[in-house]
Amino acid sequence: MRTSIATVSLSGSLTEKLTAASRAGFDGVEIFENDLLASPLAPEEIRGRCADLGLSIELYQPMRDIEAVPEEEFARGLRRARHKFALMRRLGADTVLVCSSVSPQAVDDDALAAEQLARLADAAREYGIRVAYEALAWGRHVSTYDHAWRIVKAAGHPALGTCLDSFHILSRGSDPKGIEDIPGEKIFFLQLADAPLLAMDVLQWSRHYRCFPGQGGFDLAGLLRHVLRTGYDGPLSLEVFNDVFRQAEAGPTAVDARRSLTVLQETVGAARPPAPVVPTGVAFAELLTADAEPVTALLGALGFARTARHRSKPVDLWQQGEARILVNTGPAGRRDGTRLAAIGLRSPDPAGAARRAEALLAPVLPRRRAAQDAPLEAVAAPDGTELFFCATGRPGRPGWRADFADTQTGPRDAGDVTRIDHLSLTQPWHHFDEAALFHRSVLGLRAQESVDVADPYGLLRSRAVTNDDGSVRIALTVGPAPTGDTVHARHIALATGDVVAAARRFRAAGGRLLPIPANYYDDLAARQEFPDGELETYRELGILYDRDAYGEFRHCYTHTVGQVFFELVQRDGGYRGYGAPNAPVRLAAQHAARALTAG
Amino acid sequence: MRTSIATVSLSGSLTEKLTAASRAGFDGVEIFENDLLASPLAPEEIRGRCADLGLSIELYQPMRDIEAVPEEEFARGLRRARHKFALMRRLGADTVLVCSSVSPQAVDDDALAAEQLARLADAAREYGIRVAYEALAWGRHVSTYDHAWRIVKAAGHPALGTCLDSFHILSRGSDPKGIEDIPGEKIFFLQLADAPLLAMDVLQWSRHYRCFPGQGGFDLAGLLRHVLRTGYDGPLSLEVFNDVFRQAEAGPTAVDARRSLTVLQETVGAARPPAPVVPTGVAFAELLTADAEPVTALLGALGFARTARHRSKPVDLWQQGEARILVNTGPAGRRDGTRLAAIGLRSPDPAGAARRAEALLAPVLPRRRAAQDAPLEAVAAPDGTELFFCATGRPGRPGWRADFADTQTGPRDAGDVTRIDHLSLTQPWHHFDEAALFHRSVLGLRAQESVDVADPYGLLRSRAVTNDDGSVRIALTVGPAPTGDTVHARHIALATGDVVAAARRFRAAGGRLLPIPANYYDDLAARQEFPDGELETYRELGILYDRDAYGEFRHCYTHTVGQVFFELVQRDGGYRGYGAPNAPVRLAAQHAARALTAG
Repeated sequence: MRTSIATVSLSGSLTEKLTAASRAGFDGVEIFENDLLASPLAPEEIRGRCADLGLSIELYQPMRDIEAVPEEEFARGLRRARHKFALMRRLGADTVLVCSSVSPQAVDDDALAAEQLARLADAAREYGIRVAYEALAWGRHVSTYDHAWRIVKAAGHPALGTCLDSFHILSRGSDPKGIEDIPGEKIFFLQLADAPLLAMDVLQWSRHYRCFPGQGGFDLAGLLRHVLRTGYDGPLSLEVFNDVFRQAEAGPTAVDARRSLTVLQETVGAARPPAPVVPTGVAFAELLTADAEPVTALLGALGFARTARHRSKPVDLWQQGEARILVNTGPAGRRDGTRLAAIGLRSPDPAGAARRAEALLAPVLPRRRAAQDAPLEAVAAPDGTELFFCATGRPGRPGWRADFADTQTGPRDAGDVTRIDHLSLTQPWHHFDEAALFHRSVLGLRAQESVDVADPYGLLRSRAVTNDDGSVRIALTVGPAPTGDTVHARHIALATGDVVAAARRFRAAGGRLLPIPANYYDDLAARQEFPDGELETYRELGILYDRDAYGEFRHCYTHTVGQVFFELVQRDGGYRGYGAPNAPVRLAAQHAARALTAG
Repeated sequence: MRTSIATVSLSGSLTEKLTAASRAGFDGVEIFENDLLASPLAPEEIRGRCADLGLSIELYQPMRDIEAVPEEEFARGLRRARHKFALMRRLGADTVLVCSSVSPQAVDDDALAAEQLARLADAAREYGIRVAYEALAWGRHVSTYDHAWRIVKAAGHPALGTCLDSFHILSRGSDPKGIEDIPGEKIFFLQLADAPLLAMDVLQWSRHYRCFPGQGGFDLAGLLRHVLRTGYDGPLSLEVFNDVFRQAEAGPTAVDARRSLTVLQETVGAARPPAPVVPTGVAFAELLTADAEPVTALLGALGFARTARHRSKPVDLWQQGEARILVNTGPAGRRDGTRLAAIGLRSPDPAGAARRAEALLAPVLPRRRAAQDAPLEAVAAPDGTELFFCATGRPGRPGWRADFADTQTGPRDAGDVTRIDHLSLTQPWHHFDEAALFHRSVLGLRAQESVDVADPYGLLRSRAVTNDDGSVRIALTVGPAPTGDTVHARHIALATGDVVAAARRFRAAGGRLLPIPANYYDDLAARQEFPDGELETYRELGILYDRDAYGEFRHCYTHTVGQVFFELVQRDGGYRGYGAPNAPVRLAAQHAARALTAG
């Protein structure tokens, strides 16, 4: 099926939008009238630019308040429409979107609506143009897709069909099953948009909060199945009004959009990208640094030992139990400090995982490796984090570990850390929904609900993605707006069977734990009874406590080195969360610690 | 009446919040529990800090899910409450807020609720504490203020009263008149918050979109009048959950908050700040620049002549008709280019205007003037713009103009510009609502509805404030989020009786007009018929056109110099707007012009 995107879904000038749509692999675009009005290019030049970019112009939109109005008003509308039809010929667009009237002059008269739409279609036909009539969810008299279809049917004009828009249909809670009653050839166009399930005024919801398929709460696959059963063979076109996308760079937004459409097509069986290969564990986390000293001192205090060194690169492997941290002092290390730059995911089929990622538009990273190194498939996540797919060590196949030469006999197993519990990745402010969709669709992880977290200086949102057995857990976190103030360090959470012992050992080894306010423990005592002495231990070490319906969670934090810090966690009895209720206290403590250092 | 603010309304650490509240002149605070939990200060230290800052602790909040629950659950709640009562004694707080239960365990049983609240109040009394019970708008069984009061009344306990919250009452559309049925001494607390009138889920509305009184759509004065009639003599306390305030600096937010409360008190007759003195015109606009050449060349091309020079400062007066522009090359001129830094407002009572401003917490600016200069009252707007109140030239009283010595015989009256039509002031992203309230309350201007304007790189909001005869018009504009991308230049719109003549003259004098895309004029032709040749003239000059129910508006733009540009406007037949429908096209053209220069 052809894919298309409305120019209003992307940020920038019209030519920026067209370039981004083309580069992301869309076949066509809807030209939003205001984008054309604001462009210095003549319609013929826009047509030429689209042709150069391999884009068809699938739709010109919107035309408003045409039908079911007094004759004099309709005459004015028809005059306006003829101007637009002439423009569309210059543009090379053959379908125009007409939205149901919102005009206070519109009357509730389907026969009049049908008659006037037929006369409009007569005029359109002179220009070789088709009219696609769509019910706006807030249309004055016509607000449901079946009502719009009844009017189109009554008009009985070959140049008049209907346009379906998933937002307008699903936001009103209409049953999309009735779509199957419409002959496919009378569905002139299909616009797709998802949206979070908000209880709010539908016009505001539509204008500001739409999102790409799979990023909201609508059942778009269900709707699309109904449409496909009609025989519809027009494009799948994304029309998404979203305040964030308006500000974000057009290029990445277009890639995000195109990926969402591929996933939707896959869901309904209309596309067959390589199947997802769900990762089965975290092979390693990689830190990039210009100066390894501070972070390796921290790793040492946590009980990690340097166990190996890469044969051809300045990369050390630090290990404890099954937790492996690579410390890379290579050329990409920057002066702004140590950062979490890459993740190695254990994969039963690294090549398959990479093929899936590539089909879903994840940049495949060049393999900068020496001749003797093991092949390592890698892609970039939307936030730039490098994801390596590491073979789970099938016999006869060299794993990434073979590129490292041992520097001591083995990992020091005396420590308390058993593995990486989760990785927390702060995201650029406008890539939160994209990141969740990426991790779900590219890696086959499941996304949990997103939660609000109150930082002292703004509200954060956080959402975790995991595999089924919890051996891969990634927490995606984002600030509320594009300000440096709310960008926080990333962190690596280390699993331990006894967080108290691990914290004590860390402190004995010279590590600094994040101090947690005494008031927190007074509150904990008010909320729950603990065995004698336990709370005092938590208080002494700065251990936070949470529980859910499944189990308990105890966790504490190290100080921050550059752009990264560590968490020690003890997850008991099937606890599923990440201690989110404690995050405001932890964040405030981190701000306080930073103010202390800075001040 | 005492004034108070909840710590949750402000950004930062608890001590930052307290400091900001104190500096803005609040008498007390509500301590929000999470702020205390996250603070490294012990309760006694917080108490001491408040005392040092002259702040009383009016309320500790919130306590949740206490009442109308099974006995075992209540026992746990009571245990938790006793911990909190002990904490409150250390804190020196004597009133606690209890919100109506949202727990799924809560039952619909007023008698049980009353009995358990009475037992809670018994415990509270042991600590010298009063319990204020409040109906949350989304409470499970108790969601209206009159229902909460019936339960309090039934409990009949001296340490139990009710807390009224304007958001919870007005968001549900409850009639606040019934408040007068509650004896004032049983209203233990009054929380005030306004909110924009949004049709959305009340919990989300409450948690993210509350605002200070006068910045939303609720009739807070009406509610407050009912409360005052009961004899309530507790504090007026602002409890505002707002995503923007969470990110904004606490100091200015606290000032904004305190100002809103003064205005509310004035409205109900509970405070009498000096009366507003509405400005009667724009005396001048002042540009600050390190290099006057580019902007004076532009002014010259617009038909302005340099008519006078300040006797003691490097400030020139450029004049045309009644439009006066000061060009100041003094020490504050910065290398980032010419900017619109000050506005002179004609005032029938400059000293009175300044007293009003000072009472409403506008910083009064030091008068940096030579001994012989005329006194000039000035205050700073929230965005830092200096506002000068200029005497309207009463006989015997020296006006600001007397500080200037003529450099030519008089203004060149040959030009087409008659006066300043309006000033457009871009605002820091988080000060939009504050700016509107400031201009309304401090200057006595009226605010029009705010409108969304689509810039190619994000959505802007714009709102105009005017005096009654339109001789003072200021458009406040703000980007959607704190990014430099959406900060636009300010501009000065110049009124002319014939924009075509003015534009031609400007161009003939070497001025550059912003080119407007041909597509815009094709659309204009489709929408409306113009006399022969008129549209071609607009097209040639880049003149934009709009009309409203009252009249017509024609306008065009100069190129940008530093951080400022000019608009020539012709306002006919009582047109009230500012050409907002044309703003997307103009903004796109400005981005394109900038890209051309930059590229």
